[in-house]
Amino acid sequence: MAKKVLKFGGTSVGTIERILHVANIVKKEHLAGNELIVIVSAMSGKTNELIEHSKNISSDFDKRELDVLLSSGEQITCALLAGALIEIGINSKSWLNWQIPILTEGKHSNSRIINLSVTKINDYLTKKGVVIIPGFQGISKNGDVTTIGRGGSDATAVAVAKIFKADSCEIYTDVDGVYSSDPNKIPVAKKIDKISYDEMLEMSSLGAKVMQSSAVQTAMMYNIPLEVKSTFTDRPGTKIFSQENIDYTKSVTGVAYSKDDAKITLTDVEDKPGVAASIFEPLSKNQINVDMVIQNISLDQKTTDITFTVKREDLKKTIDIIKRNKNIVYKDISHNDKVSKVSIVGAGMVSTPGVTYKMFKGLAEEKINILAISTSEIKLSVIINEQDTVEAIKKLHTIFELD
Amino acid sequence: MAKKVLKFGGTSVGTIERILHVANIVKKEHLAGNELIVIVSAMSGKTNELIEHSKNISSDFDKRELDVLLSSGEQITCALLAGALIEIGINSKSWLNWQIPILTEGKHSNSRIINLSVTKINDYLTKKGVVIIPGFQGISKNGDVTTIGRGGSDATAVAVAKIFKADSCEIYTDVDGVYSSDPNKIPVAKKIDKISYDEMLEMSSLGAKVMQSSAVQTAMMYNIPLEVKSTFTDRPGTKIFSQENIDYTKSVTGVAYSKDDAKITLTDVEDKPGVAASIFEPLSKNQINVDMVIQNISLDQKTTDITFTVKREDLKKTIDIIKRNKNIVYKDISHNDKVSKVSIVGAGMVSTPGVTYKMFKGLAEEKINILAISTSEIKLSVIINEQDTVEAIKKLHTIFELD
Repeated sequence: MAKKVLKFGGTSVGTIERILHVANIVKKEHLAGNELIVIVSAMSGKTNELIEHSKNISSDFDKRELDVLLSSGEQITCALLAGALIEIGINSKSWLNWQIPILTEGKHSNSRIINLSVTKINDYLTKKGVVIIPGFQGISKNGDVTTIGRGGSDATAVAVAKIFKADSCEIYTDVDGVYSSDPNKIPVAKKIDKISYDEMLEMSSLGAKVMQSSAVQTAMMYNIPLEVKSTFTDRPGTKIFSQENIDYTKSVTGVAYSKDDAKITLTDVEDKPGVAASIFEPLSKNQINVDMVIQNISLDQKTTDITFTVKREDLKKTIDIIKRNKNIVYKDISHNDKVSKVSIVGAGMVSTPGVTYKMFKGLAEEKINILAISTSEIKLSVIINEQDTVEAIKKLHTIFELD
Repeated sequence: MAKKVLKFGGTSVGTIERILHVANIVKKEHLAGNELIVIVSAMSGKTNELIEHSKNISSDFDKRELDVLLSSGEQITCALLAGALIEIGINSKSWLNWQIPILTEGKHSNSRIINLSVTKINDYLTKKGVVIIPGFQGISKNGDVTTIGRGGSDATAVAVAKIFKADSCEIYTDVDGVYSSDPNKIPVAKKIDKISYDEMLEMSSLGAKVMQSSAVQTAMMYNIPLEVKSTFTDRPGTKIFSQENIDYTKSVTGVAYSKDDAKITLTDVEDKPGVAASIFEPLSKNQINVDMVIQNISLDQKTTDITFTVKREDLKKTIDIIKRNKNIVYKDISHNDKVSKVSIVGAGMVSTPGVTYKMFKGLAEEKINILAISTSEIKLSVIINEQDTVEAIKKLHTIFELD
């Protein structure tokens, strides 16, 4: 017997048939003797439909009311799933954001869960009741409805697992786990059985969109074992836990990619102390995150070229800020948003020499030009031209023996 | 300046365009200096869609969860309307069932509003904020979501008007008022400018489905002036208030009809004391409401024929109960559900002699057979064959000078 949090995403509860199917998964876990708290998303398409409604009213729809609007989606799923469980003989109840309550702090549409009251729910669990909780939402201390950002149902699941000291948190979704790369692009990509929180974080923030990053972070902080698995098959999914529980046989766990970046180059920048700061400080003040920076060694000791990357959505704003910046002198500014970021991720990398060399050599063999590089303990990312993306992923997947 | 409750029904808020239109009506009332509490229904079709979902899960969907499910509909409208008002520069906020709270008692799906907290809302009103409240719902003292029956938004509006001591309660709908008869059937039917609560009650319970009866009853009890008007035209609607405020120039205000009844006849019933009780007591115990009863004078003093009407939906159950009843002796039981009830309604009837005679004579002239009759102070109903309905309404409309 274990205390488990099960979370079902939008496609898992996207139709009545699927909700009935989810009810059967929950029933099986219940009959196995587990205490269950189930977190549900809105039925797929529902949230977008509601957002569309709000946009037809205002391009800047009031944030408080938007949260009231969107929170209805998960409320509907809660009631339907609780009703479906009761129908098949399982004692179950929906608990809405204000009934628990799920207390949040922060701004509308971007709040954080800070607490849930546990007493009543624990009582209900010991009476063998299955608790259904809406993901993605809560209430503020003023009693307003709040939401915690898109994909926030993962965050709800992990927060609930943490606060209720659950033995595990299972994320049911429409894929059967985390893959060594995007299976749509790389047919030989394999499902990863076990992955560490750190690796998962790099995988998800880099584009393996299986689970919300901040939810993985919270799970890591509180050491909550996660499992990502498919609602639609019976197969085991990907288990995510702390590094020490994983026996690494490979240096690289997966190859991730994203197309969210843009590259900006300033040529012939006057090379004097503090020049980088005078470029990047105004960006940082405007909430623009600079990812990679390359500064060429200046031959004449007077000017240098500086290349850096920002999120593609920040490109225009970044260029505007630089052009308005009177503190830097440069010849030309150019940009390229037809780039992609490809990364190898692996907790085993740090203890394996030559990974970097192997990566660069592999890309060179395919004549793929590396435009920028960044590294961390468990990942190595390169910016390349967008048209080389699939070829690069395939090559890296092969040379790091992931096929 | 007045304190007003405005209620908008499902078709009035059925699309985003209509919600924007409603926002403009509210804005106009707001700029006229009124303090406004707005009650909204779910967008038309929404509640049926949710009920359909629940039925696809269970033919006997859990009542608690059904209330959670259905209450989402009005929540959505609240947020959209509040957002639309803010967009056009009006200070506005949605207040959900639990945020006010709207306290109810009674069973799930059939609760009654017993109280609303007024302090916070009155504060907000004095600050010129427009309050948006979901109709049809509340919470129980245990903190469960409850609903108050279909059409319950009218009941919410009147309860809010009562508790907030509003000067008036305006019911915005898709017709422009109460008519002297069904304008779809009787093209010469006229909008009634003023009607008393009693007449309105008879009109609505008899089939002029403009406003929910129990809401009219509450308005009558607390003397809350009502106005039923169209969301889609600027014309005045029908004002509903107490009888003493109306100067009656006509004996009959309107002609209503319904097709909810069925007629049952028992022939050659053994005529002994208490026979009626032994027929009707078991029906009453089974919550079957008997409307009209006709007992023929028995010629032989030994047997009699008894005819009565029940709601059409109770017909089968009624016949079953009678057939199982060992306490009555009769020759034959027959039934007819191809009947309709046509009624003339008017607070002026009581002081006008000859109304009954005029009605019977009119119907006789059209060779319409009267199958049963019932009367009250302000109405006179007859059961006739269904195929005669329109002809009967037309005739009565003409002879009582309503055209």
